[in-house]
Amino acid sequence: MSQSKGVVVLAYSGGLDTSCILVWLKEQGYKVIAYLANIGQEDDFEKARKKALSLGAEKVYVEDISREFVEEFIWPAVQANAIYEDRYLLGTSLARPCIARKQMEIAQKEGAQYVAHGATGKGNDQIRFELTYYAICPQIKIIAPWRMPEFYNRFRGRSDLMEYAKEHGIPIPVTPTNPWSMDENLMHISYEAGILENPKNQAPPGLYTRTRDPATAPDTPDILEIEFKKGVPIKVTNVEYGTAHHSSLELFVYLNEIAAKHGVGRIDIVENRFIGMKSRGIYETPAGTILYHAHLDIEAFTMDREVRRIKQALALKFAELVYNGFWYSPECDYIRHCIVQSQELVEGTVQVSVLKGKVYILGRESTQSLYNEELVSMDVQGDYEPSDATGFININSLRLKEYHRLQRKVKAQQK
Amino acid sequence: MSQSKGVVVLAYSGGLDTSCILVWLKEQGYKVIAYLANIGQEDDFEKARKKALSLGAEKVYVEDISREFVEEFIWPAVQANAIYEDRYLLGTSLARPCIARKQMEIAQKEGAQYVAHGATGKGNDQIRFELTYYAICPQIKIIAPWRMPEFYNRFRGRSDLMEYAKEHGIPIPVTPTNPWSMDENLMHISYEAGILENPKNQAPPGLYTRTRDPATAPDTPDILEIEFKKGVPIKVTNVEYGTAHHSSLELFVYLNEIAAKHGVGRIDIVENRFIGMKSRGIYETPAGTILYHAHLDIEAFTMDREVRRIKQALALKFAELVYNGFWYSPECDYIRHCIVQSQELVEGTVQVSVLKGKVYILGRESTQSLYNEELVSMDVQGDYEPSDATGFININSLRLKEYHRLQRKVKAQQK
Amino acid sequence: MSQSKGVVVLAYSGGLDTSCILVWLKEQGYKVIAYLANIGQEDDFEKARKKALSLGAEKVYVEDISREFVEEFIWPAVQANAIYEDRYLLGTSLARPCIARKQMEIAQKEGAQYVAHGATGKGNDQIRFELTYYAICPQIKIIAPWRMPEFYNRFRGRSDLMEYAKEHGIPIPVTPTNPWSMDENLMHISYEAGILENPKNQAPPGLYTRTRDPATAPDTPDILEIEFKKGVPIKVTNVEYGTAHHSSLELFVYLNEIAAKHGVGRIDIVENRFIGMKSRGIYETPAGTILYHAHLDIEAFTMDREVRRIKQALALKFAELVYNGFWYSPECDYIRHCIVQSQELVEGTVQVSVLKGKVYILGRESTQSLYNEELVSMDVQGDYEPSDATGFININSLRLKEYHRLQRKVKAQQK
Amino acid sequence: MSQSKGVVVLAYSGGLDTSCILVWLKEQGYKVIAYLANIGQEDDFEKARKKALSLGAEKVYVEDISREFVEEFIWPAVQANAIYEDRYLLGTSLARPCIARKQMEIAQKEGAQYVAHGATGKGNDQIRFELTYYAICPQIKIIAPWRMPEFYNRFRGRSDLMEYAKEHGIPIPVTPTNPWSMDENLMHISYEAGILENPKNQAPPGLYTRTRDPATAPDTPDILEIEFKKGVPIKVTNVEYGTAHHSSLELFVYLNEIAAKHGVGRIDIVENRFIGMKSRGIYETPAGTILYHAHLDIEAFTMDREVRRIKQALALKFAELVYNGFWYSPECDYIRHCIVQSQELVEGTVQVSVLKGKVYILGRESTQSLYNEELVSMDVQGDYEPSDATGFININSLRLKEYHRLQRKVKAQQK
Repeated sequence: MSQSKGVVVLAYSGGLDTSCILVWLKEQGYKVIAYLANIGQEDDFEKARKKALSLGAEKVYVEDISREFVEEFIWPAVQANAIYEDRYLLGTSLARPCIARKQMEIAQKEGAQYVAHGATGKGNDQIRFELTYYAICPQIKIIAPWRMPEFYNRFRGRSDLMEYAKEHGIPIPVTPTNPWSMDENLMHISYEAGILENPKNQAPPGLYTRTRDPATAPDTPDILEIEFKKGVPIKVTNVEYGTAHHSSLELFVYLNEIAAKHGVGRIDIVENRFIGMKSRGIYETPAGTILYHAHLDIEAFTMDREVRRIKQALALKFAELVYNGFWYSPECDYIRHCIVQSQELVEGTVQVSVLKGKVYILGRESTQSLYNEELVSMDVQGDYEPSDATGFININSLRLKEYHRLQRKVKAQQK
Repeated sequence: MSQSKGVVVLAYSGGLDTSCILVWLKEQGYKVIAYLANIGQEDDFEKARKKALSLGAEKVYVEDISREFVEEFIWPAVQANAIYEDRYLLGTSLARPCIARKQMEIAQKEGAQYVAHGATGKGNDQIRFELTYYAICPQIKIIAPWRMPEFYNRFRGRSDLMEYAKEHGIPIPVTPTNPWSMDENLMHISYEAGILENPKNQAPPGLYTRTRDPATAPDTPDILEIEFKKGVPIKVTNVEYGTAHHSSLELFVYLNEIAAKHGVGRIDIVENRFIGMKSRGIYETPAGTILYHAHLDIEAFTMDREVRRIKQALALKFAELVYNGFWYSPECDYIRHCIVQSQELVEGTVQVSVLKGKVYILGRESTQSLYNEELVSMDVQGDYEPSDATGFININSLRLKEYHRLQRKVKAQQK
Repeated sequence: MSQSKGVVVLAYSGGLDTSCILVWLKEQGYKVIAYLANIGQEDDFEKARKKALSLGAEKVYVEDISREFVEEFIWPAVQANAIYEDRYLLGTSLARPCIARKQMEIAQKEGAQYVAHGATGKGNDQIRFELTYYAICPQIKIIAPWRMPEFYNRFRGRSDLMEYAKEHGIPIPVTPTNPWSMDENLMHISYEAGILENPKNQAPPGLYTRTRDPATAPDTPDILEIEFKKGVPIKVTNVEYGTAHHSSLELFVYLNEIAAKHGVGRIDIVENRFIGMKSRGIYETPAGTILYHAHLDIEAFTMDREVRRIKQALALKFAELVYNGFWYSPECDYIRHCIVQSQELVEGTVQVSVLKGKVYILGRESTQSLYNEELVSMDVQGDYEPSDATGFININSLRLKEYHRLQRKVKAQQK
Repeated sequence: MSQSKGVVVLAYSGGLDTSCILVWLKEQGYKVIAYLANIGQEDDFEKARKKALSLGAEKVYVEDISREFVEEFIWPAVQANAIYEDRYLLGTSLARPCIARKQMEIAQKEGAQYVAHGATGKGNDQIRFELTYYAICPQIKIIAPWRMPEFYNRFRGRSDLMEYAKEHGIPIPVTPTNPWSMDENLMHISYEAGILENPKNQAPPGLYTRTRDPATAPDTPDILEIEFKKGVPIKVTNVEYGTAHHSSLELFVYLNEIAAKHGVGRIDIVENRFIGMKSRGIYETPAGTILYHAHLDIEAFTMDREVRRIKQALALKFAELVYNGFWYSPECDYIRHCIVQSQELVEGTVQVSVLKGKVYILGRESTQSLYNEELVSMDVQGDYEPSDATGFININSLRLKEYHRLQRKVKAQQK
């Protein structure tokens, strides 16, 4: 064989696409190191490892990055109440920089000049991967086959890939594939494309794979106590059973389990991709949904109103940055710092009920709350002078009265 | 009797508080006109009218303002996706300016120099009422007994009111009162104070009066098609039964009914009052919750991403203004104008499923959508050149690379 | 000659670059229509017309778009107080969509499939031109030679262009060129590149061509009265001479003259380009600077505080959009609409003094002002009750006191 | 004499108003401790001390807080580029919390239950003082005579104060007072009220007391090099004379001197007070104006574009909070933290020319800049691929094309 073009670290999933890419990259003259991230998806990692080797990978890295995914990516999102366009909890967006960071670690360790991924040319993931690559190592060279004419003109559909697989001894999936595509990690599963591209089409029965159908979920709730410290969950207790989970990964897995049992976390949305098109996505985010609600509650309980408003604006921007792939950017670094600062005293316990697809807040307590029961009481006057409110209202009405004066004048002139 | 101090139009509910206030105002030398707003609460308005007359009101106005409440106050909130502090749909906040506006109409018609209300001195409602009064008529004089020492020092608790009622022939409620206070209108019911003041206490069973318990709600959903035009619902169809509701009020009442049947719209929150204290509120907002979700969906489907972002910031401000009582203010006028403008093409139909406390979006369609099925398709290339994304990513990475360059330099210096 | 590749409308300036591009395009097989925009720069348009024809242009359009530039582009910027990164008044950014719009009109009239421009591949102008082209006609094909390897590899510097010019009979400039590049229109002149690329280098004496050196400008000011209606200047009067200018273009030209005489409008900044690099620019914006200050003043005088705050945030976004080339975008359309709405009552007269590089506000008056001299007076009480301020302050201090309470508790715990 | 009502610490200026207040407080039965803040105003502090003692003050504190004013209040404002309503550099707003903080220190040291000030009932200063008092010590009792009917009804104008002074042996100013009121500190002087209340009236000749008339200022500039570290000036060098100033206070005083010499820092504005009225103010802020421009420049040079945008929004809020008196509030604490964080790498040197009322930026350099001369160069390609810009533009045009598509459809339907 002729001289190698160099070493490429490929983000490999074990599926048909990245298997074909692996072989195709070899065909192009690259040495390929396959990197398989265990970020909490259900997968047979050993089988995938063997497959990669059998397809000619020089090496295979299977890396369990679940815990760092939770602690370094999901927790900041929980602290931010990060939500994109009012609905999407960013499950895929948060995973990408975590996956890509490890990929760059491997590339640097292996002295690889190239990294490659199997994301499509119309999506957000290509951007999330590549901005991470470049931010970590500006000199890295990226191979994105689905944006290369020599690749995408050759593989115009699934059948082309199948044929290529047959020709090159790539094992072909035996089960029929769903007429949509999926992406899975510890935080969520996404479903898009295929028959879902028509935004009017309902999600077919059986699409959802992680959460139970809320209609047939249990009739009795699980009651959980979620304890936060610095805006991050540190303990989850099932009130009925008294069981408690403490460490980040274990408690997140447990919340996933409870939420899945009760059908919590399903959404069907049309969202705006960074490249400017609208796309339709269906998501299951079980634990993330519980934590979103619980954190909102403890934050509202402990954080000053005006700090919250400022933080809310920062968090909107944060969600947008994460969605667009700018996790590793100066502005996202900056916002994360500011958000962490806002969480200094966000601590306490929220009691939630999880039932039939929904999370209900039952109550909350905190030693650091700004809530003052005596002050707010309708029965006790507390340290409050009702007549102060008169002055407050009068002064607030000043501008309104001046505006009224002007409006009347303007109307009089118009006659 | 000596000369009258003047005429006061009192916002009268028929309950113990405002009945005592009515009599007390007379005692102070005012002529009292009672004004009872029918804003969709369940009440025996005729009984209340008679009661007011029997207590010495010069006149009683019972005004049905439900339709204007829906069209002029709830619809703008739907267009805005107005939500206060991420959770509260503003049921009471929206009703107050509607109630107060009619009260001012009556005051002006009757030549009254005074208006009065029974809101407490610690809450938001006093502000919402009074800023509306002043904005409409800067010269109006306001009597807010719960902020007047001669009143609140005399009536230090419910028992003082009861005694006063007995002394003055005011009918006393026969049913025992709940250990919390409620406020009701077409859009929502709120529960606060009393035993709810401890934010840890769960809402007791039986508190909720409008929506069914999600746990025991029907096992089969209602599927609705909600049609929007200019961001406002114009038709609701029950897919199974084929029944349709068109006019604003009827459609809203129907959505209330469906949502209530399925236990939709309950929240338990700690919120920040305008006067600066945190308070705990429990709310039921059935129809409002369905419309919030449906409108979000049709808006995301039809509105440009960047317009949406600008509008979202305006809507955050709008919610804050409405909550704080500034419906009639120059800035709220301005924002409403801008939001209406954003809704010009927000039209189409959203299909939702209402089940067990939750609203699920099933699909949507619109002739005015910016969604382009061919463009987004993973199977068709459409009018899209994948290699453009390479340039897009590269240019977006420029700043990140420069930042990396600087960071490395800074780190090198720190060594 | 073989068959034409089609017709291209070229934005032609008459200078060396676009002359070479004209000839080069012909060489590539296009029929070239030259379009020369008169947007207020000092130029011999007839000479340029002849030059284009002599170089082989099929047709030449010389279009005077000065008035539409003022009315449709500069006025909205004045209404917005549009300023990019706190300093740049957007002279070039505003001109580009105006120039490109006319170019597209010609392309559509002529049935041209192509448009071309001479902007470089690192700048903002390419984006401003092309986003305008695409927004007006998504099907248009764009030729940007400075981004085409076959062009930029051939013309690696000025000497390559000079040589090409000699070979092809393109007249060569006789005067030596400045070691920087310039762009000029009615609103401003910009200087960048060359020796200015070192951000430490001072602008050399003699760089500025439009405004007089403030150090040697007249010792006596010109006093102007500028009258606004709906946020737009409608009359400028020189108080000393009594001369008045009314129409948009004349008034703007007059302000340019006065400002230039007094050395007003020079800045030297480092700014952030849309593509992500920092660049250094020096600008002269004479009339624009006077209008910026005068409009700020009349707006502050007539607009409600809170409306102003909302509008200010919109205007920040507007400036960013204009800078980035998104004049013709849904979000910029939307913001312009909102800003126009805010200007409804921005009217009145501002008196300014223009002297030695600076604009001083001397006074202002308006029949539509929200300023209430009696209300604000320190000598008259007016319709104001000082004790109301006590309540206002007390209520505003509530949150602060609660925060203090919590802080003390936290500190106590830390001990 | 009967028993004392308690001890009050009075913010005393030595002028007629607070002298009368001092005596009046004694008359009401308080023991008065006079506190005179030296915050950089020109004053005979020893004379004022003696006057206070002669009027019956129990004690007099004269406290020099100039340095802490510069370091703890002005520097954060410089870092923020804090500017209220686009024009006002917040000279008085920044001084008030600094003055009030020291006053509370004295009150706590002396065990005083009361603090008092001489601010009027219509202004911002009462709020700035009192929110600071309450934030530092929620239990403090405040005496604000100008909001007490027994005071303001007795002293309805200057002549009432004069008469009272005569009666009580309070020395009366011998020089005629200006027909406006002034407030002075190290950062600025403000002029308002009196004849300035008519917003049309020009500032009379001779009003300005700190800066020279720009018209008659020197014809040759001073050229300064201002060095920043973490967003704060640490050295000012006069290029011609080679003199350098390093420490915060000295450097600020020197900048005041240079700016005053050249007439820099005058503005005449109508602003919006926190209580909701518009007022007219004239200000001189010499050093603050130079630093505002210099900091803007070094920040733009060293800070990432997107970080700057986020920081700019925070700074807008910061200015508003400072203006409104919320320096000591949770949200202002939070924002200050975030702004400090943004300044980590804002360092380098800016060269400015100060001439005839204006500050001109001449150049800047920094070892921490994100400016990349090679990258931006028009002569060198650097690490930049022009064709990337094509993809960038094409992807950015996607939304615009879709919008065009929809607009055309809508228009077609309307026909």
